[in-house]
Amino acid sequence: MERMDLVIKNGSVVFSGGTRMANLAIHQGKVAAIMQPGFIPDAVRVIDATGKHVLPGMVDPESHAGHSFPLDLDFQTESPAAAASGVTTWGIQDPSPRMGTKPFKKEVEPSDVVSFHDVMEIGIKTGQENCIIDFFFTPQLETDQQAEETIEYAEKYGVTSYKFYCHAKNPKIAAKLWYVYRSGLAAGFDDGVVFKTMENVAKIAPPGIVSIHPENFEIVRVFSQRLMDAGRKDMEAWTDRSPDFVEAHHIRQYAYLAKITKCPLYIQHTTTAESLFAIRKAKEEGIEIYAQSNPVYLCLPKGTWKLNPPLRDRETMEILWEALKKGEIDALGSDHVVAHGSRAEMEVPGDVWKTTSGFPSRVEMMLPLMLDEGVNKGRISLERLVEVMCEAPARIFGIYPRKGTLQVGSDGDVVIVDLKRRVTVKNEMIHSRAKWTIIEGRELTGWPVMTIRRGEVLMEWPEGEPKSRILACGKGEYIRRRPGSRFLY
Amino acid sequence: MERMDLVIKNGSVVFSGGTRMANLAIHQGKVAAIMQPGFIPDAVRVIDATGKHVLPGMVDPESHAGHSFPLDLDFQTESPAAAASGVTTWGIQDPSPRMGTKPFKKEVEPSDVVSFHDVMEIGIKTGQENCIIDFFFTPQLETDQQAEETIEYAEKYGVTSYKFYCHAKNPKIAAKLWYVYRSGLAAGFDDGVVFKTMENVAKIAPPGIVSIHPENFEIVRVFSQRLMDAGRKDMEAWTDRSPDFVEAHHIRQYAYLAKITKCPLYIQHTTTAESLFAIRKAKEEGIEIYAQSNPVYLCLPKGTWKLNPPLRDRETMEILWEALKKGEIDALGSDHVVAHGSRAEMEVPGDVWKTTSGFPSRVEMMLPLMLDEGVNKGRISLERLVEVMCEAPARIFGIYPRKGTLQVGSDGDVVIVDLKRRVTVKNEMIHSRAKWTIIEGRELTGWPVMTIRRGEVLMEWPEGEPKSRILACGKGEYIRRRPGSRFLY
Amino acid sequence: MERMDLVIKNGSVVFSGGTRMANLAIHQGKVAAIMQPGFIPDAVRVIDATGKHVLPGMVDPESHAGHSFPLDLDFQTESPAAAASGVTTWGIQDPSPRMGTKPFKKEVEPSDVVSFHDVMEIGIKTGQENCIIDFFFTPQLETDQQAEETIEYAEKYGVTSYKFYCHAKNPKIAAKLWYVYRSGLAAGFDDGVVFKTMENVAKIAPPGIVSIHPENFEIVRVFSQRLMDAGRKDMEAWTDRSPDFVEAHHIRQYAYLAKITKCPLYIQHTTTAESLFAIRKAKEEGIEIYAQSNPVYLCLPKGTWKLNPPLRDRETMEILWEALKKGEIDALGSDHVVAHGSRAEMEVPGDVWKTTSGFPSRVEMMLPLMLDEGVNKGRISLERLVEVMCEAPARIFGIYPRKGTLQVGSDGDVVIVDLKRRVTVKNEMIHSRAKWTIIEGRELTGWPVMTIRRGEVLMEWPEGEPKSRILACGKGEYIRRRPGSRFLY
Amino acid sequence: MERMDLVIKNGSVVFSGGTRMANLAIHQGKVAAIMQPGFIPDAVRVIDATGKHVLPGMVDPESHAGHSFPLDLDFQTESPAAAASGVTTWGIQDPSPRMGTKPFKKEVEPSDVVSFHDVMEIGIKTGQENCIIDFFFTPQLETDQQAEETIEYAEKYGVTSYKFYCHAKNPKIAAKLWYVYRSGLAAGFDDGVVFKTMENVAKIAPPGIVSIHPENFEIVRVFSQRLMDAGRKDMEAWTDRSPDFVEAHHIRQYAYLAKITKCPLYIQHTTTAESLFAIRKAKEEGIEIYAQSNPVYLCLPKGTWKLNPPLRDRETMEILWEALKKGEIDALGSDHVVAHGSRAEMEVPGDVWKTTSGFPSRVEMMLPLMLDEGVNKGRISLERLVEVMCEAPARIFGIYPRKGTLQVGSDGDVVIVDLKRRVTVKNEMIHSRAKWTIIEGRELTGWPVMTIRRGEVLMEWPEGEPKSRILACGKGEYIRRRPGSRFLY
Repeated sequence: MERMDLVIKNGSVVFSGGTRMANLAIHQGKVAAIMQPGFIPDAVRVIDATGKHVLPGMVDPESHAGHSFPLDLDFQTESPAAAASGVTTWGIQDPSPRMGTKPFKKEVEPSDVVSFHDVMEIGIKTGQENCIIDFFFTPQLETDQQAEETIEYAEKYGVTSYKFYCHAKNPKIAAKLWYVYRSGLAAGFDDGVVFKTMENVAKIAPPGIVSIHPENFEIVRVFSQRLMDAGRKDMEAWTDRSPDFVEAHHIRQYAYLAKITKCPLYIQHTTTAESLFAIRKAKEEGIEIYAQSNPVYLCLPKGTWKLNPPLRDRETMEILWEALKKGEIDALGSDHVVAHGSRAEMEVPGDVWKTTSGFPSRVEMMLPLMLDEGVNKGRISLERLVEVMCEAPARIFGIYPRKGTLQVGSDGDVVIVDLKRRVTVKNEMIHSRAKWTIIEGRELTGWPVMTIRRGEVLMEWPEGEPKSRILACGKGEYIRRRPGSRFLY
Repeated sequence: MERMDLVIKNGSVVFSGGTRMANLAIHQGKVAAIMQPGFIPDAVRVIDATGKHVLPGMVDPESHAGHSFPLDLDFQTESPAAAASGVTTWGIQDPSPRMGTKPFKKEVEPSDVVSFHDVMEIGIKTGQENCIIDFFFTPQLETDQQAEETIEYAEKYGVTSYKFYCHAKNPKIAAKLWYVYRSGLAAGFDDGVVFKTMENVAKIAPPGIVSIHPENFEIVRVFSQRLMDAGRKDMEAWTDRSPDFVEAHHIRQYAYLAKITKCPLYIQHTTTAESLFAIRKAKEEGIEIYAQSNPVYLCLPKGTWKLNPPLRDRETMEILWEALKKGEIDALGSDHVVAHGSRAEMEVPGDVWKTTSGFPSRVEMMLPLMLDEGVNKGRISLERLVEVMCEAPARIFGIYPRKGTLQVGSDGDVVIVDLKRRVTVKNEMIHSRAKWTIIEGRELTGWPVMTIRRGEVLMEWPEGEPKSRILACGKGEYIRRRPGSRFLY
Repeated sequence: MERMDLVIKNGSVVFSGGTRMANLAIHQGKVAAIMQPGFIPDAVRVIDATGKHVLPGMVDPESHAGHSFPLDLDFQTESPAAAASGVTTWGIQDPSPRMGTKPFKKEVEPSDVVSFHDVMEIGIKTGQENCIIDFFFTPQLETDQQAEETIEYAEKYGVTSYKFYCHAKNPKIAAKLWYVYRSGLAAGFDDGVVFKTMENVAKIAPPGIVSIHPENFEIVRVFSQRLMDAGRKDMEAWTDRSPDFVEAHHIRQYAYLAKITKCPLYIQHTTTAESLFAIRKAKEEGIEIYAQSNPVYLCLPKGTWKLNPPLRDRETMEILWEALKKGEIDALGSDHVVAHGSRAEMEVPGDVWKTTSGFPSRVEMMLPLMLDEGVNKGRISLERLVEVMCEAPARIFGIYPRKGTLQVGSDGDVVIVDLKRRVTVKNEMIHSRAKWTIIEGRELTGWPVMTIRRGEVLMEWPEGEPKSRILACGKGEYIRRRPGSRFLY
Repeated sequence: MERMDLVIKNGSVVFSGGTRMANLAIHQGKVAAIMQPGFIPDAVRVIDATGKHVLPGMVDPESHAGHSFPLDLDFQTESPAAAASGVTTWGIQDPSPRMGTKPFKKEVEPSDVVSFHDVMEIGIKTGQENCIIDFFFTPQLETDQQAEETIEYAEKYGVTSYKFYCHAKNPKIAAKLWYVYRSGLAAGFDDGVVFKTMENVAKIAPPGIVSIHPENFEIVRVFSQRLMDAGRKDMEAWTDRSPDFVEAHHIRQYAYLAKITKCPLYIQHTTTAESLFAIRKAKEEGIEIYAQSNPVYLCLPKGTWKLNPPLRDRETMEILWEALKKGEIDALGSDHVVAHGSRAEMEVPGDVWKTTSGFPSRVEMMLPLMLDEGVNKGRISLERLVEVMCEAPARIFGIYPRKGTLQVGSDGDVVIVDLKRRVTVKNEMIHSRAKWTIIEGRELTGWPVMTIRRGEVLMEWPEGEPKSRILACGKGEYIRRRPGSRFLY
């Protein structure tokens, strides 16, 4: 037998179907062999994972690289941060003005919203040159033209997932209390655009999927005004302005369009029990619907910071954990955004309305938080973590089994995890441009200690060192998906 | 590296996550290595699967070995028949008088229904001595005592699945039109027994599960009488006596008890759209419910033979295929029973009421039918077939990933399939004691050509031979499940 | 204009559509004129209702006269008790052995359950000779023959409503903890009998209706046993043995048969939130379903006495009041039974299991309880009381607008109510054979002070007297209903 | 007894609870007495209704007087048309620019949308001076200010019902294919306005109610464009552009807000089975929801004319009839609008897009159509007609029992109907300014022959005359409703 490029031996390998001692060989970027203990092929490099767990690389389906800084810069600074958290594949959810075109406009106007034909090649090239992990795009749509071109995008660029940021349906309303134009959204959209998109995407499913950020800003504005009128400026006011039904309202109405068009629907953020109820009701009507939540909604209570959708109370957090365990939540994503370098630039202490929303470093703390709060606290198994952070996002977004699983023939994307390592989070550990994290000072048990992308070690964190190291390495690949095909090899 | 016992090379290996060229090595009964093409470990025996597909051994969760003949005899004659269809693990669903106790009583009485403590060891031993494939038991319960002892059974015998044959809830009613006492059922049961069982089984879930055969015989008797009064004696009358709502009625009422007790529920036979609707409604209420159907309900239309539940019309068959594809049906089972040796012994031509119900050889034709009607006719993918015939039954019944998947460390259970082989079914091909099949004369494309159980070849069918051969080999193992554990290694 | 027999002047007349000052004239047993204040026709007798409310006579759809004493005796002693509570029409729900046949058997056997053809004429005659208020029958069915004859009963006797006492589906089970055979039930029934009945009754709807007492005794027995094993003997144990889902379980399963047969369904006792939920779910499926509750479930908390179904906790009582107000509960009934003469004969202090279930005088306290707890405590309006105690039961059981409303042409059935009268309940006030009431000592505000049946004063209670007087008067009429006709004139 | 102003004798009086021979006396504008045949009070005028039916005056909850012509002019010409159809109470649904302010602007702008404080008195006065029947207002809201002032409107003007014309949520979109600005709508509204309104209206319920015209124009525009692109110009294209789900989509989303706010919801137009399904689902969640349909959706198939929402196919018409009979549709309304004088002014033959939508005379043909198609064709009973055209709209809109019923003390509003009169509809019969009707030439059986409003005869149609006559008479009264009160006397 040929000599393998890399062997990871003696680790507990986490398959969705259970965890077992096994040796894993990677060759030419692919998983070339999985073997029982005792069988170790000859290899150029051998990594001993004794006492550690070997997981597939994380698939983070929701990042907004390019949101507040140019896409190339974000890829340069944030993809290492993702790699530090074990992410080897990134789903980038961007509107057309955020796909890497130059010059970068801080705040966009309706005329900046263009066809994705004008920007997709730029986005792909920007990623190939600057992102250290593999990536795909989930365009945020706004216009009729974009909706009508979705099948063309699928055929030409291998793009099968599309998103509607419903919060920004009417950007004029959203802009009053939130910097929507800074997100690259400006045109707004109506249900006709969603309907047309769903009709088209249904034709390329699987893996065609439409995602929504459900949050009815038309009602949020009412609560915001009341809270401001009442003099509320505390962080919890941000949660109070967006009660549970505001999220469920959108889930219900777009689930119904999904039923009519027979289009799979992905709930980008599932943050309340009311949403879980809406999703069960949708399934009863035969709708194919998937729920994503984010580690921040599971691990950080309301009042921690402002975020869209907002953080919820502790009781809700436990409901979400239970739903994650039972399978009512299918997947997790980071919703990573980096807007500023420091906390001071973002925060206006004591005034939630003036503080900038969306704390940074979400991707970087994703896996440690889930290992600590989820696995080590016994809320979910490691196998379930792999399902929701690797396998399910890969399946739903059409890149499975190339990504999201450790099967022979899959990409050699691996994260090695030390479930026992205990570290207190410090801002100095952060790789992101934003050199701080909301969970500074929190002690977490369970950390990724090595990230491997297609056989290349992107990150390693030797025992005893204060933080992980990002290593020099090749570039990320753009993942072209196959319309109408359930599997991608 | 040590020399492997067996290598299967150059086959297209079907994982639930896709099909790939890979080489598979089995050593000491376990999958020891999975390798990309080009990597072949040294082995005692090498099987070349070029042009063929390599699947996990089938897990058939529903067999009634011991139903009409003593359990040892049924294991001797029927487990080879199962192996011929690629089945390597058998879930035996038997009431206590059918667990192998001697002498075998053709028709049982209430006093024959005993504690499973009295029969479980006998059943296990009988299987170990006579069954050529691995097996586990799903006891059919009837009494309070049995219900109350379920946790003891789980702890002592590793039994985590239990069944209620609701059709026989009131055996006095059922006996009038159907030979219920010949099934080993005699005591009857009430909802209190079901409730107690569900309460207990909820405590051992996963993988604790309660299965029901849903069919309200109290209503079936009304339709039977009307059909008989109307002079109907044709085979289709058997379907007309058990309309769709009769099945859904039981699904609804036991799903509700499952909700109350938080016990997972398995619908043994899902044969109509009305049942699928009931199942969706159950899920909306948060109930963990699984649907099994059987290849016969997908492939054979009403009028073919009498069966409980009955065969359905062709339109319903297509609805079931669609549900199987979409995931509304989770698993398949054979419901294998052998009652007589020949068709002549069973059939009273022109009189459905006098004909014996339940044509034989169901397990033997299971995989060929699914390959022909399902995969080769494009209704489901081969990956979906593996999900519903291997992975899902293994997961639901608590034997995954030891069974139901081709992962390193799993049992070396394999079936090699030739998707292109075209054969006309003949009674002479049958290995079962019942030397005939209802589909004689039907040409099927796609056949299992080799079955391997823990590395031992149980069946092979060389190209050009008239039928498969069952080979001398070791005995089946009893699969002891682990209460409260999602995975079995 | 001819001279009227009777005029009730200056009262506040309660129509379902509001309360107004009006004068009411009755002539030849019918409401002959309703007039605004100022218009008073000439009359033989004029009753001045100044300061009082004038309501239609109560329609109590659920009485079990004949249950523990011969029907003629019960009619003689209990119909005056009903009249004392303003009831002018009684729906008698009896199994065939309780229809007045002689000799009266305290405990019946299956062979006593006969065709209603054998007993209906007896029942009618017994009522005509002994009951002082009008009456109709809702037979409690048990056998196939009875189910099959329902349309004949409808045509021959004007019987359009039928009941299943699901609690006694399997009388052998029920008999162990409850004196089911003393209720005249002995044969038991299965879903086939219910199904046949529903099929038939659907054909005569409106006003055809099938009623169920929902309570799954098969599960009740489990809880009973556990409570007894735990040494519980207190009155609350009677509630604990029949949790909410036990009632909802039957509602769900028979609602589904109602859907299949398109038969209207009447829930005899709706006592929990879980039942209300089941009923809403049934309506979502298009099922015509009505909910009855009883004043005792609204006014008496668990622990007061044993009853089938049991009394519930105070929180549930408020939920029921709210449902009654909103319209989720359609009607009320008394479930009147008299089993013994004194409390001492019934009660074994400290041992709920030995105590006789079903406290007496339920009909007699029905209206005073509803006036005090419902109207005077502001939980429901007087108009809603008339809807649920007069109009709705009359409509549902097919005797509207002859009964249940004060319209010109309707029967001159009236109850005059003094909303301000305050009286402390004493056993001495009771007209029933059972000379005691569970609410002795309770002060109630709001009492019926006169009951008029077809223009005849049956009861009057002059201010200051210790109790109401029952007056000599003519006999009750049997109300023959019209199959297929929504209105009865 | 005093002498009555008017007696209607020997008619069959239709109560919701049945039809009976009775004599009806009206005095000082009120129903003063209802008497059995044989009892006839002395009266100034006696009308002999022998052979005819006497119904309560119709309550039409939906008219748009003031829509295309000034409110005073519309009241002058259209209220007689309404009276000709038996309507004695009119619910006027107008946006603020259509409340009678002068000068009348054909097309409005956002700045024309003002507080109802600015226009309500004008509207009331305009009605009192020009409308010959009684009336109330259901303001069409668009702005935050209006939403916030709803409770003030309720207290000051007795206005408890409010409407959202969801079709015109985004008037810029709607204006492209439909003359939305001509309806007086210009500001548009968002879900925040609806939410605020519902919150307020919940506080005044009953009879507070929010009505919606459900039709998602954002999706309609997609279908419109496709149909235009495909060259479709036929009348049926108008239906095809607004498929059933477009209506149900809005019902679902506003029903959910109604659930959250606990506000009763009124579906202004229920025109499809999909909507009925949505309404049942809403009820299952405990939402108080009412469905109105219109005679045109029951009686005129798609292709007849363009209308919002559009006419449906014949199969749907039958489904609506069935729903009306069963009670799934609660009420009917006319949606009366008059835009032009003649058909020629409206129609561009062969081009649905250029033709003016909304054929006139809808109120005038309402009752004859329902008598012919509904009662005489056996689809609904006359009692059900009275429920849905008199009683239910009166109850829902808070004017019952003053309106909508023939009870002593109610307003003396009566329509006398000749169920046997057969007349072929001719344009010359029309009283409306628009001197034509879409059903010209259709022979209808069953006509109103006299309309009486508070004892005054507004219309009579002697046998043999070619059309009805409108008589000189007093003016209509404004009906001030009582917030929080279920009944209005």
